[in-house]
Amino acid sequence: MSSTLILLRHGESAWNALNLFTGWVDVDLNEKGEREARRGGELIAEAGLLPDVLHTSLLRRAIRTSQLALDTADRLWVPTKRSWRLNERHYGALQGKDKAATLAEFGEQQFMTWRRSYDVPPPPIDDHDEFANFHDPRYAGLPPEARPRTECLKDVLLRALPYWYDSIVPDLLAGKVTLVAAHGNSLRAIVKHLDKISDDDVVGLNIPTGIPLVYELDEDLQPVTPGGRYLDPEAAAASIEAVKNQGKK
Amino acid sequence: MSSTLILLRHGESAWNALNLFTGWVDVDLNEKGEREARRGGELIAEAGLLPDVLHTSLLRRAIRTSQLALDTADRLWVPTKRSWRLNERHYGALQGKDKAATLAEFGEQQFMTWRRSYDVPPPPIDDHDEFANFHDPRYAGLPPEARPRTECLKDVLLRALPYWYDSIVPDLLAGKVTLVAAHGNSLRAIVKHLDKISDDDVVGLNIPTGIPLVYELDEDLQPVTPGGRYLDPEAAAASIEAVKNQGKK
Repeated sequence: MSSTLILLRHGESAWNALNLFTGWVDVDLNEKGEREARRGGELIAEAGLLPDVLHTSLLRRAIRTSQLALDTADRLWVPTKRSWRLNERHYGALQGKDKAATLAEFGEQQFMTWRRSYDVPPPPIDDHDEFANFHDPRYAGLPPEARPRTECLKDVLLRALPYWYDSIVPDLLAGKVTLVAAHGNSLRAIVKHLDKISDDDVVGLNIPTGIPLVYELDEDLQPVTPGGRYLDPEAAAASIEAVKNQGKK
Repeated sequence: MSSTLILLRHGESAWNALNLFTGWVDVDLNEKGEREARRGGELIAEAGLLPDVLHTSLLRRAIRTSQLALDTADRLWVPTKRSWRLNERHYGALQGKDKAATLAEFGEQQFMTWRRSYDVPPPPIDDHDEFANFHDPRYAGLPPEARPRTECLKDVLLRALPYWYDSIVPDLLAGKVTLVAAHGNSLRAIVKHLDKISDDDVVGLNIPTGIPLVYELDEDLQPVTPGGRYLDPEAAAASIEAVKNQGKK
């Protein structure tokens, strides 16, 4: 028996458009992001891959992406599970900062290390930072020592994997078409795990927004096709190419 | 310890506006219904009654009402549970029929019996009726003998109570502010149960759309104030009065 996993990265948010580091700040989708989410739902429906269950983060840009996509695919009613373990990487003290200003202040090498290295997190956020959110009720069940103050991709992988094994894998093993609507870095962590990408190579992995990435998994939950397949491969390739060129500037 | 229950009836749907019997047909909210849902979320937030958990039916007009209300109250992230047991009453062979034409065809006495009696259901829906939905995947886990073909309010109460006891009561006993976003008749069934309304008196019970109805419940889950309280009592009274006068025409 094989299982189907659909990964969907949320569409553009207001802060993506403003070029700010977002992380755990609960920014909403903008209109482009809403269109991307609905387009993701169309692609899922056109492919006949109707989700039986949904997993999302606790952040509204992922939740609303899932709602708009499932509304479009007429699957609003599927069971829904959410966890902070699928949240975006916590960007530490950089949350709310302008990316260009941060690059100018710290230089390209430090900037790219924070953005792309596997195991170097940005400086931790201060308790009194306006974006610290330490009293946000959605994390009330998470004691202080378990609350991230900053994360690198390795940290994201370590906190996402328990949710993968405990909540997503049982749905996949039950044969459910499983939709995970989440974020650039929580999805990169899942893909790194599935495709056994090395710590060095994962630095170059980018997942486009709003284009469903589908994995057929065998009974050991290994990808039948490494890297999966995007439901709109041309748009995905164009988006990945654009991110590469962005990095070269 | 007391518990807080918030009942929210979905806003106006496209078929409410067209005066058609809806039941289990999965009609969406119209723009007025979307505004009502957001207003419901405002009232909840203004009252400081932030839901810790959401229960809805499997029908999109209740699901979207909950999403719009929780979006407005910034509680999109709360755990969500859904069940067909919170669905609207199944209206049998009347689903999709024009209310005025049905009244003209069957006469006022029969019409009012179907609409308002506690224990007389409309004629059952035929397997081949375009609104039968017997292959709808959201009910795939419900074997044919458990699938309603028509329901009176008593039937709704009998199928809603198991969900009340098994899923909603544990959240209330855990002290969670519990939001139930559902339908005129599934909410009437819950209110009948809570307020111990007789089979005769429940005929006159109407719950307005989009206005949260709040029950504080004691440790035995008995209402501290019988009938609860509407978060916008004037609008609720006006809506209930309008329905009464509608009945007199």
